[in-house]
Amino acid sequence: MENVLVSRGNHHDAHDCLTGSEKPPPLDLSHHFSEVTKRRTASKIKQAYKFFQIPGILNVAGGLPNVSFFPFDTLEAQAAKPERWTPSPNHPGESVAAAGSSNPTAASHIVVPKSLDERDPLKKIDLASVLQYGLAQGYPPLYSWVRQLTREHLHPNTPYRDGPEVILTCGSTDGFSKTLNLLVDQWTEGVNDVTERPGLLCEEFLYTNVLAQSMPLGTQIVTVKSDESGMAAGGPGGLEDVLANWDPSKGKRPHLMYTVTLGHNPTGIVLSVERKKEIYAVCSKYDVIIIEDEPYWYLQFPSAAVEEAKSRGKPVPSPPVQSHHKPNRSSGYPFLDSLTPSFIDLDVDGRVIRLDTFSKTVAPGCRLGWITAQPTFIERFERITEATTQQPSGFVQGLISELVLGPQHQPESSRSAFSLLRSSREKATFTGWNMDGWVRWLEGLRGMYERRMVRMCRILDSGARLISVSSSSSGSRPSSSSTSTDEQDTPLTVSLSPTPLYTFSWPRGGMFIWLRMHLESHPLWGTPSPKLGGKPLDGLPLSTALMVFLTTKPFRVLAGNGAMFSANDEVRQRMGWAYFRVCFAAETEDNVDVAASRFVDGVHAYWRVRDVAVIEKLLESLEDPGKSGLEEGEEEVQREDAEEHGLFRLASYMGC
Amino acid sequence: MENVLVSRGNHHDAHDCLTGSEKPPPLDLSHHFSEVTKRRTASKIKQAYKFFQIPGILNVAGGLPNVSFFPFDTLEAQAAKPERWTPSPNHPGESVAAAGSSNPTAASHIVVPKSLDERDPLKKIDLASVLQYGLAQGYPPLYSWVRQLTREHLHPNTPYRDGPEVILTCGSTDGFSKTLNLLVDQWTEGVNDVTERPGLLCEEFLYTNVLAQSMPLGTQIVTVKSDESGMAAGGPGGLEDVLANWDPSKGKRPHLMYTVTLGHNPTGIVLSVERKKEIYAVCSKYDVIIIEDEPYWYLQFPSAAVEEAKSRGKPVPSPPVQSHHKPNRSSGYPFLDSLTPSFIDLDVDGRVIRLDTFSKTVAPGCRLGWITAQPTFIERFERITEATTQQPSGFVQGLISELVLGPQHQPESSRSAFSLLRSSREKATFTGWNMDGWVRWLEGLRGMYERRMVRMCRILDSGARLISVSSSSSGSRPSSSSTSTDEQDTPLTVSLSPTPLYTFSWPRGGMFIWLRMHLESHPLWGTPSPKLGGKPLDGLPLSTALMVFLTTKPFRVLAGNGAMFSANDEVRQRMGWAYFRVCFAAETEDNVDVAASRFVDGVHAYWRVRDVAVIEKLLESLEDPGKSGLEEGEEEVQREDAEEHGLFRLASYMGC
Repeated sequence: MENVLVSRGNHHDAHDCLTGSEKPPPLDLSHHFSEVTKRRTASKIKQAYKFFQIPGILNVAGGLPNVSFFPFDTLEAQAAKPERWTPSPNHPGESVAAAGSSNPTAASHIVVPKSLDERDPLKKIDLASVLQYGLAQGYPPLYSWVRQLTREHLHPNTPYRDGPEVILTCGSTDGFSKTLNLLVDQWTEGVNDVTERPGLLCEEFLYTNVLAQSMPLGTQIVTVKSDESGMAAGGPGGLEDVLANWDPSKGKRPHLMYTVTLGHNPTGIVLSVERKKEIYAVCSKYDVIIIEDEPYWYLQFPSAAVEEAKSRGKPVPSPPVQSHHKPNRSSGYPFLDSLTPSFIDLDVDGRVIRLDTFSKTVAPGCRLGWITAQPTFIERFERITEATTQQPSGFVQGLISELVLGPQHQPESSRSAFSLLRSSREKATFTGWNMDGWVRWLEGLRGMYERRMVRMCRILDSGARLISVSSSSSGSRPSSSSTSTDEQDTPLTVSLSPTPLYTFSWPRGGMFIWLRMHLESHPLWGTPSPKLGGKPLDGLPLSTALMVFLTTKPFRVLAGNGAMFSANDEVRQRMGWAYFRVCFAAETEDNVDVAASRFVDGVHAYWRVRDVAVIEKLLESLEDPGKSGLEEGEEEVQREDAEEHGLFRLASYMGC
Repeated sequence: MENVLVSRGNHHDAHDCLTGSEKPPPLDLSHHFSEVTKRRTASKIKQAYKFFQIPGILNVAGGLPNVSFFPFDTLEAQAAKPERWTPSPNHPGESVAAAGSSNPTAASHIVVPKSLDERDPLKKIDLASVLQYGLAQGYPPLYSWVRQLTREHLHPNTPYRDGPEVILTCGSTDGFSKTLNLLVDQWTEGVNDVTERPGLLCEEFLYTNVLAQSMPLGTQIVTVKSDESGMAAGGPGGLEDVLANWDPSKGKRPHLMYTVTLGHNPTGIVLSVERKKEIYAVCSKYDVIIIEDEPYWYLQFPSAAVEEAKSRGKPVPSPPVQSHHKPNRSSGYPFLDSLTPSFIDLDVDGRVIRLDTFSKTVAPGCRLGWITAQPTFIERFERITEATTQQPSGFVQGLISELVLGPQHQPESSRSAFSLLRSSREKATFTGWNMDGWVRWLEGLRGMYERRMVRMCRILDSGARLISVSSSSSGSRPSSSSTSTDEQDTPLTVSLSPTPLYTFSWPRGGMFIWLRMHLESHPLWGTPSPKLGGKPLDGLPLSTALMVFLTTKPFRVLAGNGAMFSANDEVRQRMGWAYFRVCFAAETEDNVDVAASRFVDGVHAYWRVRDVAVIEKLLESLEDPGKSGLEEGEEEVQREDAEEHGLFRLASYMGC
């Protein structure tokens, strides 16, 4: 295996010296396509499209309403300036430039007009084009902008000839669904041969909607072991081990891998370039397609290692050596250059399908993203898109086009007294974020999330150990509650327990802190539970009860446990119970510290629970759809109302 | 067969007398579900959703960005008033009420605010909710509104207990894709047994994107004959014939039917209730699921029969007897009551899946629609949606919610001097279209399209016959061109040819006029073509050449021929060539008459083409992607530019 890695590694490095057209083309990997995908054909009507472009031609062919019938005369928005948020340094200790805007929190007014007299489709951003039937690859101005962002700024060094292509999606769940459509044939036990059963490689912990999408197709989920640096390429249970020792009687050797490499969900790990090269080499050797899903791509936290050491009173590590392979072309932005390269940047073969999304950079409700891959794959994605979603909504495509590209020119009809009044009030003409603004927005977001991460991790660090409070006479007996100790008048001894309640690494990226809860040290661990048929309490019930306990007064904080992110029941039983995922993204700025403190307080209080019946009651309340936690109250009524409206079918809400 | 029809018909009528809870429940039709659909499970995380609703709980569970990080502070639009367009009468001869608005063309300003302090999710229309991760069934306010529209106003008389449910889609292409996902197992020759091959029943002419969606799954397309009233239930080649005489060695007897019943694409037919009852009875007998796709639902033209007769100097028919089965509950709107009932309204068994869309009522770029079906189907659609599109874009859901529901209340922060100024300028506070406004908007659209249809059909009627112009001395020799006749000084005889160039019925609904072109009467019919290897010119080449000819100067009009709407090659060869579809929806108001006249002029001129080489050149130019029609010119350059941008991949553009 060493040999494989070295040779592949050299392969990459050799490619870095070549220019676009000197590089070899991507491999023909069409043998991976599903039967359905192979059978898709381009629209026969295409022949006729050229006629649409004849100047002055009248169209009685297309079955589409004239723009005058759309009830919207404009789409508008108040949009942030790119400078709204303060960035954090790209490297520990670096300083950050000033905001560069006199009033960074102010908003600009943007307008998509009804109809522009503009012949260049890349400059025509109007309702007449964006609310009409459109192109599967995306609305031309936005498609073109995303393609430029991807090819010139995110992945200017893709190792195959002429680089990757892109297609817009309705977000990355849609992107992954289309990837399954591209690569997976439906498999049914008893109908199809077991040796044909498709397999999907993934980490033991992951965003489980991926399973809900893959498994109904008959796909076998195949987990790969991870260490503290992410998915393992070698070693027992690592990628090479799984593939080299594959038992064909259990299904086809997996030809697909799903992974998140920058700010992994739920573990917060950033996969290093070195590890990526190792994994890529194994995938190349065993002909595995890598599906790289990167919703948190821009959220890499250079300060995490340093701040973690400081918070824990450990020696501050020297800044990491910039071990990224030296690209021969810069992204044009120090911020983008500072991010750990993508699998796409190492993709000699053209076997990487990367999923990007606007969900975390603009908003999840956009339902807008894009796929990056070799051109043959993208062509098939276009056919799949024509047969499924057709295109993302023009409402979001239009407003985001206007945001990033700005008004191309103002139509005469909209230069009303009203709009002039508006312009003068705002004292500036909005000119679009452009690429610089987009990158600046991402830097600001990274700054916000990084500072939240640091604040929350510090609080979690400060509360990681159990504080034993005891009267000096009675040894180490912990008090049953914090209030009861106040009532006592005897001298107290405060001591930190030798083993922490939880341990964790500060996340190097993403939105999540991944805590190993040491439930084995809970006083009730191993105590028989009458309601569980006398079974001793162990990881899963104690973990589940903790989750419910945290939602009760006065803690009132909701965190997900590792069972929710386990790839299968074996993982769930073996170690899923031991983890909690804490997100620092969802709450308001003011609540970040409060939530962390409540979490810490709740965990401490939980360790003071000595009555098995309390645990049992917590578990019961989870099973009962009408109950939450220990109390009953006015919220029940409200919950029933909401339930009636079907509000609890919040697909993938927690797992995102 | 008569018996079947009668008994099923009675079955329907009996149901009309029952109230919602007295009706029998829909049949369990889950045996139709695909294996993949059966294997889908509800999210395991659902258990935890109830905790999200606890007042004051802090959320560190969900991996979602806080609303403050969205770069949009509002979404806004200038929106039409519901009264913008003048309706047409619901019944011929009826008068139409006045506009009811002092300035019907004016627009109202609508605003979706960033965050409302509103606990009722049905009243909370803000960016904090609509741009966040959401529910597969749809954004609660909009979902609830669509559900009310569907259950109370469109289908208040569905014959099964408690009526149908709904789920929002990303438009009807997405809706049909999800329907295939629900009902069709991938089938591959050589892998799966031929007797398992799924089949889809459809008309001989249809929106062919349906084929592009179905066929890659291995679905067999099975055509059913139509007559002038639409799909035939009985008779040779009719539905009963196809199903009763099914040869299982060619595949499974089809369990799916695709159809458009109101303003059929491309034929413009409105399927009568009587015909629907016959078809439904056969589907019930043979256990076929009916997929009713109704993009043109509101575009039914009561004046078509009368105006057609007037235009052709024929006796004006007496108003049609309102033969719709008498519903026991009105929709609440005379306009909706006047439309021919849907298959859903006859759906005793719960075997109808109806697809609706906002594409023609708001704009195609919405990518928003909904599915109506029995609750068990809708539950499965929710699971499918969670694994594919998740939800329609929040941008369109938010703006359409605001349009139809209006502001629930104004947030303090947006009551700026600016917004007060704006309100006062507009002299009215926008209160939402509400259900009345929505129906009024539809009535106005119907009026606009109906008047366009009448205008275009009159022009087409006036030019349906070839005008033979000849000098009185030289008998019936047609002139070679219209200009050349002007040069002659001899007396002329103008005569109408006995057989028309084309015949057609005025469309009773939809957006299309479907013309039978009598190409058999073209002077070059049967003339051998050297470039076609000496083959005599017949339907397909003459039809294709006509399409290209119409795009040339001075006609410059683009129409689709029937080959584009043929279900298969047999239909294309047999009769596809004979039809042209002319759409009266896409052009500007001013161009409707111009386009019709140019079409007529072009057809007449085509009948004057006497040189086989001209036809051959027209056909050649179609094959050559760089050429259009007979001329070459500046447009070539522009076309190449556009092609480079991939603009010709306009999926389903013409077929919509």
